[in-house]
Amino acid sequence: MAEQQKLPSRSENYPEWYNQVVLRAGLADYSPVRGCMVIRPYGYALWENIRDALDRRFKATGHVNAYFPLFIPMSFIEKEKEHVEGFAPELAVVTHGGGKKLEEPLVVRPTSETIIGHMYAKWIKSYRDLPVLINQWANVVRWELRTRLFLRTMEFLWQEGHTAHATAEEAEEEARRMLDVYEDFLHNEAAIPVVKGQKSEIEKFAGALRSYTVEAMMGNTWALQAGTSHNLGQNFAKAFNIRYLDRNNELQYVWTTSWGMSTRVVGAIVMVHGDDQGLRLPPRLAPIQVVIVPIWRKDVDKTPVLDTARQVEQRLREAGIRVHLDDREEHTPGYKFHEWELRGVPLRVEIGPRDVEQGQAVLARRDIPGREGKTAVSQESIVQDVRTMLDTIQQAMFDRAKRFMEENTHTVSSYEEFKDVLSTRGGFIRVFWAGTDEDEIRIKEETKATIRCYPFDHDGSEGTCFYTGKKTNRVAIFARAY
Amino acid sequence: MAEQQKLPSRSENYPEWYNQVVLRAGLADYSPVRGCMVIRPYGYALWENIRDALDRRFKATGHVNAYFPLFIPMSFIEKEKEHVEGFAPELAVVTHGGGKKLEEPLVVRPTSETIIGHMYAKWIKSYRDLPVLINQWANVVRWELRTRLFLRTMEFLWQEGHTAHATAEEAEEEARRMLDVYEDFLHNEAAIPVVKGQKSEIEKFAGALRSYTVEAMMGNTWALQAGTSHNLGQNFAKAFNIRYLDRNNELQYVWTTSWGMSTRVVGAIVMVHGDDQGLRLPPRLAPIQVVIVPIWRKDVDKTPVLDTARQVEQRLREAGIRVHLDDREEHTPGYKFHEWELRGVPLRVEIGPRDVEQGQAVLARRDIPGREGKTAVSQESIVQDVRTMLDTIQQAMFDRAKRFMEENTHTVSSYEEFKDVLSTRGGFIRVFWAGTDEDEIRIKEETKATIRCYPFDHDGSEGTCFYTGKKTNRVAIFARAY
Repeated sequence: MAEQQKLPSRSENYPEWYNQVVLRAGLADYSPVRGCMVIRPYGYALWENIRDALDRRFKATGHVNAYFPLFIPMSFIEKEKEHVEGFAPELAVVTHGGGKKLEEPLVVRPTSETIIGHMYAKWIKSYRDLPVLINQWANVVRWELRTRLFLRTMEFLWQEGHTAHATAEEAEEEARRMLDVYEDFLHNEAAIPVVKGQKSEIEKFAGALRSYTVEAMMGNTWALQAGTSHNLGQNFAKAFNIRYLDRNNELQYVWTTSWGMSTRVVGAIVMVHGDDQGLRLPPRLAPIQVVIVPIWRKDVDKTPVLDTARQVEQRLREAGIRVHLDDREEHTPGYKFHEWELRGVPLRVEIGPRDVEQGQAVLARRDIPGREGKTAVSQESIVQDVRTMLDTIQQAMFDRAKRFMEENTHTVSSYEEFKDVLSTRGGFIRVFWAGTDEDEIRIKEETKATIRCYPFDHDGSEGTCFYTGKKTNRVAIFARAY
Repeated sequence: MAEQQKLPSRSENYPEWYNQVVLRAGLADYSPVRGCMVIRPYGYALWENIRDALDRRFKATGHVNAYFPLFIPMSFIEKEKEHVEGFAPELAVVTHGGGKKLEEPLVVRPTSETIIGHMYAKWIKSYRDLPVLINQWANVVRWELRTRLFLRTMEFLWQEGHTAHATAEEAEEEARRMLDVYEDFLHNEAAIPVVKGQKSEIEKFAGALRSYTVEAMMGNTWALQAGTSHNLGQNFAKAFNIRYLDRNNELQYVWTTSWGMSTRVVGAIVMVHGDDQGLRLPPRLAPIQVVIVPIWRKDVDKTPVLDTARQVEQRLREAGIRVHLDDREEHTPGYKFHEWELRGVPLRVEIGPRDVEQGQAVLARRDIPGREGKTAVSQESIVQDVRTMLDTIQQAMFDRAKRFMEENTHTVSSYEEFKDVLSTRGGFIRVFWAGTDEDEIRIKEETKATIRCYPFDHDGSEGTCFYTGKKTNRVAIFARAY
């Protein structure tokens, strides 16, 4: 973390810039197991803040946490036809345990609809038992060949919500509610704007009736699916025989949903907000919101500067602000500025001898480089000033990301134009769409762009499909995606 | 959870009593995968409180969290000789991934010294990098044949701390510090007294120099190892080549520790505190600290009783007390009393028409059955009264458990007496001990009792070994154990 070499340029080599930021900021490291990563303390502290912010929202909407086994019998995965087709190629399989070959191989969970479905069939008897609103925080494994730190790893951490309802309407309402929860979290905590919408048949979850998604735009204009919520209809209820006695004493299948968000979100935060100096973390999620850098040259200044820095540190900490005082003596202030910029701390407080004399301190915003982002404030009012500034930074980061997404969302009226825009400008391409599954696959093969979603915000008006020329009132957003 | 059959008697069939309490209180359920369990929402909420109480203590002692991969290359496990001997028989092995046979099998982590050692060798370069104080919250897998809910399961949740230090003294200090943290947690949060001590050579962790333990006494007088802390010396440092440049620019091996506490602690809480009515949860960890049961017979009383109950609920909640109002209309108050007793809620608040009239409520303690545990309090002072009562219950539960442990700790002066006490009275048998490893193994074979620890509280005085007749100043505690 102490290296002070220059980062690769974000505009010249985005993938390498991303890797270097993740590694050098101390978020994660490669592991000796191909495709797995190590989440380092700074990255894990960020994940803890993400987890807590989501968990509060899940509990506020009536959900409780539970924990289901890591291992799933192979036969369970095979019970839902689409599910096994989707997941079979990605499974890690335990064949030996305690020195013996197992009679039935165990799958390391890639997702838990099947084993949770089995338990729900045991637990749910009557309409009085519904709804069941359970979430699980867990690790899952999907055998990926091309992995990238946080974005696509063989093992990742996530939450998976699994709910069961008496009616189709309630399940649909739940799936949509949790999509709104994800949007709210991304918007208000991660400062990431999203497009909400429905997945195409090709892109939906294996086993879902309908999949919903929140799609975010990364700094290179590619899309990233930041969270998904699935209305599973009665597919898993029928595969696992989850039934309840209704008020008329008749047996009915339940309706289920599932929804998930993972450590991928850490990658999204890096890619949406980062710049050539490194990470920029949104204040609400930053493990360190404020770093204090004391500055002195003459020995005589050291004690008064450090004393003042410690007083400010204590006052900020007591006000509930996550603050760190960098009082290392082996590094220069310039070195420290560089390091904390790389690590994305939203606000730096500089305190030098003149500041001590004048009872002030200098706040330097991470999101606005140079003099423009600096303000001198009185030590007296510093707690309130820092708090206000953190809110301002949070909002400014969201506004910038939103502007970026809007500026890079294009409309086209022909496939030629589509290919041209995609190769020259990239971004989200928002079009009327009346194509078939086969058309969608062909476009992916020819351009690598996929349908990210049918956005909810389309007003229903009719237009001409850019690909088929047919009239339609369906709108799709295409993009290259992670 | 709604069954109101009688529990098996704790004194007549302790194992079955334990299983039924865990299942009927809704803490956990059996899973379709042999040896794995499902932690149900009520049990998981208890685990969340345990986790948070431990995590606060880890952070207060300077530790940070991180996350390391679930899979470990088989070759890593083999690098430390004692480690592989200890763990090889218990491994779950992934041999296939993504549809192909793997070149090197992957082990599902049984514990993470090896993979963390590998990363520490990469991260630690200089004395400036030390100490490294990392903890991980994770699931681990050990292939167990005879499993019991929470106490011994194939997969379990735990935390594992892994630290690296510049000197032997610092490592020893850390291992002892974390044992004190476990004792503090068990004492002050779980209301469980423990004996702290060192493990015998036979019982120590595979790969440790010295293992320390906190041993608790269950309700049937058996012992349970509630947490362990290991001074690993330089064993893993040498196996994984973890070295640093000291202040004289010379390469030195680091000294490491590891320490862990798991979901087993939930089982300990059930077994230490439970009674024939079910669970008794210590207030500091209880997911629900207070349940309010409104009582009315005549329709005219319903609204005033429920209104008062809701007001009390709101005031308790606002005071930060975890409170639940049981306003179900399909069950009688008696049914509800029984259910919340089974589920171990420490304090019940009863509110009936007369209480409304008189501006009072009745507090009923879970830890003292019947009239003796009931107190009428004024609604005005109820928040303070409940808070005081919860503290009183917490202390009373600890005191009772401590008295029980003391009353069931015996001394003996011969092996004959040892066997007699063990078979008639059980408990901890505290003896002078000068036996060999072979003696220890023979005693285990003949009596099933093992050395739980060499307790730290022995004053160093000399006595006669009950088994060998030799003079010694070493004291051991023997017991049957989970």
